[in-house]
Amino acid sequence: MAKLAKLDDIVSLCKRRGFIFQSSEIYGGLASCYDYGPLGVELKNNVKRAWWKHVVQMRDDVVGLDCSILMHPLVWKASGHADKFADLISECKKCNTRTRVDHLQDKDGKRADEHTEHVSLDTAVATEHDLSNKVCPNCGAVGQFTQPMPFKLMFETQMGANAEDSMTMYLRPETAQGIFANFRNVLDSTRVKVPFGIAQIGKSFRNEVTTKAFIFRTREFEQAEVEFFCEPGTDEQWYEKWKAARFAWYTDHGIKAENLRFRDHDPDELAHYAKACVDVEYKFPFGSGDWQELEGIANRTDYDLRQHQRGMRSTTSWFENGRDLTKVKMPDESEDYHKGPLSFFDDQKQLRYIPYVIEPSAGIDRSTLAFLVDAYDEEEVKGETRNLLRFHPSLAPTKAAVFPLVKKDGMPEIAHNIANDLKKYFTCFYDEKGAVGRRYRRQDEAGTPFCLTVDGQTLEDHTVTVRQRDSMDQVRITTDQLRTYLRDKLEM
Amino acid sequence: MAKLAKLDDIVSLCKRRGFIFQSSEIYGGLASCYDYGPLGVELKNNVKRAWWKHVVQMRDDVVGLDCSILMHPLVWKASGHADKFADLISECKKCNTRTRVDHLQDKDGKRADEHTEHVSLDTAVATEHDLSNKVCPNCGAVGQFTQPMPFKLMFETQMGANAEDSMTMYLRPETAQGIFANFRNVLDSTRVKVPFGIAQIGKSFRNEVTTKAFIFRTREFEQAEVEFFCEPGTDEQWYEKWKAARFAWYTDHGIKAENLRFRDHDPDELAHYAKACVDVEYKFPFGSGDWQELEGIANRTDYDLRQHQRGMRSTTSWFENGRDLTKVKMPDESEDYHKGPLSFFDDQKQLRYIPYVIEPSAGIDRSTLAFLVDAYDEEEVKGETRNLLRFHPSLAPTKAAVFPLVKKDGMPEIAHNIANDLKKYFTCFYDEKGAVGRRYRRQDEAGTPFCLTVDGQTLEDHTVTVRQRDSMDQVRITTDQLRTYLRDKLEM
Repeated sequence: MAKLAKLDDIVSLCKRRGFIFQSSEIYGGLASCYDYGPLGVELKNNVKRAWWKHVVQMRDDVVGLDCSILMHPLVWKASGHADKFADLISECKKCNTRTRVDHLQDKDGKRADEHTEHVSLDTAVATEHDLSNKVCPNCGAVGQFTQPMPFKLMFETQMGANAEDSMTMYLRPETAQGIFANFRNVLDSTRVKVPFGIAQIGKSFRNEVTTKAFIFRTREFEQAEVEFFCEPGTDEQWYEKWKAARFAWYTDHGIKAENLRFRDHDPDELAHYAKACVDVEYKFPFGSGDWQELEGIANRTDYDLRQHQRGMRSTTSWFENGRDLTKVKMPDESEDYHKGPLSFFDDQKQLRYIPYVIEPSAGIDRSTLAFLVDAYDEEEVKGETRNLLRFHPSLAPTKAAVFPLVKKDGMPEIAHNIANDLKKYFTCFYDEKGAVGRRYRRQDEAGTPFCLTVDGQTLEDHTVTVRQRDSMDQVRITTDQLRTYLRDKLEM
Repeated sequence: MAKLAKLDDIVSLCKRRGFIFQSSEIYGGLASCYDYGPLGVELKNNVKRAWWKHVVQMRDDVVGLDCSILMHPLVWKASGHADKFADLISECKKCNTRTRVDHLQDKDGKRADEHTEHVSLDTAVATEHDLSNKVCPNCGAVGQFTQPMPFKLMFETQMGANAEDSMTMYLRPETAQGIFANFRNVLDSTRVKVPFGIAQIGKSFRNEVTTKAFIFRTREFEQAEVEFFCEPGTDEQWYEKWKAARFAWYTDHGIKAENLRFRDHDPDELAHYAKACVDVEYKFPFGSGDWQELEGIANRTDYDLRQHQRGMRSTTSWFENGRDLTKVKMPDESEDYHKGPLSFFDDQKQLRYIPYVIEPSAGIDRSTLAFLVDAYDEEEVKGETRNLLRFHPSLAPTKAAVFPLVKKDGMPEIAHNIANDLKKYFTCFYDEKGAVGRRYRRQDEAGTPFCLTVDGQTLEDHTVTVRQRDSMDQVRITTDQLRTYLRDKLEM
């Protein structure tokens, strides 16, 4: 019987086995930033590789991109982030703690809506907020809140040494805008034609008012986003196709289907430019609702490309610190918007348009946490508890461990040679310390799918035992077939 | 005859074929930030994978790590960056341009020393600077400089919504300190014993006064660093071993040995804590000296671990914005430093010490540029110029391209099936457009090592031609052996 993981079990395992540490722990820790340890970095890199393989490498219609985190401030003006990417917060007059207004709970315990990642500031400011019945989550005071005010979520910094070229920059709060800003570059330098997508994995930063649950909501996080460009009118089909593809990606990599669901956004929850949005949710072992967003899939229409096309045309009060305004390109203002520089010309249909965009936007840290939680298991074996991580082979940090049964008769040398050969192809761990049963258990807990043991028989017939993590079944494989045998099983 | 690449040729190729674009180009561009396009992201990811494979995966004595970019400010106080990581700059009184003092040139054209990445501020401030003969690189005025002043190189930002937990944070200027801060975590959660290394790849940020030469010196850049911990007294051997290993890594991945050299740092160029430092330099087609640093290998002694151990003990005026001081752990002050929390106990020798550190620190963007420049070639073939990138197979963005000779007789379907099968294992491009000779040339320019063509004979004997990029030799391989044949050649 699989055991339901508690978040505390996961956090403890992560620290003990070197998956995830709190950042700057020797200085008391830094809230909401985390470091991936030796096993964690391999797991997270595997999650990223599995995403890239399925979203870019194996598809004909998606290409990759890797943009800088720092971008021109005009990008954030055009996208709307510079003015509107903020949370509405209120400060408790008794203890001065600031809380997101949409996270405040009523005195009668009515739950806050934790679904929304961020409120739409336009909507939030326009709404009347009755906070007279709300409880301060810090001191418990009721109805002691100040008038709600916006709190900007982008981190700011200054770039440049000279007064003339120094400007206020933002750490990107999403990778998506770098894709839109490069839409024209990609069209001009590759053979892509609409429908096609541009994919990117990278760090983003949001100065969250409240962080949450281990690596679930952090101020620094990694995203994997696709902007898929399609002809208006085909957007609803592509939305459905991407929903299916992304759901399948999680289950194909080991997430149990019963722990995964879609949640459509309510109309009043949608961003003003979005035609539709759905979250892929995972049943996490924490939070008020358990079901939490892993990924959002949105139909963003042609909003972003239109905004950037407009941005390219305009220079009104967008520059800072005396930078030369004339450097911005000015396309012919007489053109219709759909014929502008960010339009696409379909030469078969002889049709020019601004493409619509379907955006599957996944959180790499959240996915990594979901893969960890879902793989976590404890079972009774001969009166002992066996802790294990049932990772999909492609995600397992260590693919194989190689043991000599005992430290004599040349077994360590043979085992070492096997490990060194396999290490050219995938991660492999050599271990000769302690009883072999304990070595198996250590690898089970690290999620290693295969353990190879060199024993007395190896010296006679050149076979080793290959033990499978989940079933604990063992087979004997000759050493010259090991590489092929394991790569097939590992789908590598 | 191989042709020497000019930087302009490389920049132009990079934009035209989608390797590298200037960031935020549609808004006039952002100085010193760059975006990797569809081919560039594959190339750069391959450089990172090749580094990780050789530095982590294939070694027994190195484990990986992935730390957050934002770390506790105490990390930068302890490391010395908060107070000392700055360039000495001077402003021209005529045009107000600020320049690094160590980059200023004399009127008689005497070259500035471009070797040093950054001056040591302690030394620079203490030195007398006679700028009376120096020329402003912007307006040409001579001797019009202000008194030199320090310019801090770390980007600053503010984190947190509440006055109590809001603090000034830095974007890390190097990945190394995240490794030192996790030394204890890694010791406690893995089986590593000194000598061992911790490796990390990630973004770093420096607010450079002068940026330089395409992706060579940028304000946002990616590093690949190892901190290799060893017993004092063995440090000089490990320094030599890492020098050899790192030099070989570049030549093993295709850099011509004649374009690579070591340059030992002069004693007055060394950071005060470094016992020795050497640069691996590449002969770039730009700059005053051509030879420029790709990687630095330093013997950092036990300086960093001692600094952090001291940092853990002290709380003097290090906190900002009212954060609770008592949260910092206070080890027993009576301990000798070499017995502190960042020491290592060698249980065989029964010896406790703070390890020495050898640090090979490579620039991923610079290496990527060097691999591009070194692979660039033009040759005359039948009266035409063939442009090609002679990438090492492991670095090539696209491993294979698959063509139907003509668009009939079922050739496109067969070629498509081959491409789709190979895409499960590596990057593969399908192309059916235009004459096959032109398709070969397009792939040569993208550096694709193998082109596979489905032709009339394929329909009879299930073989395809496999054309090798560098020699243009062709062999016929049966379709069911393609995967194995190519993976062997690609060393994958």
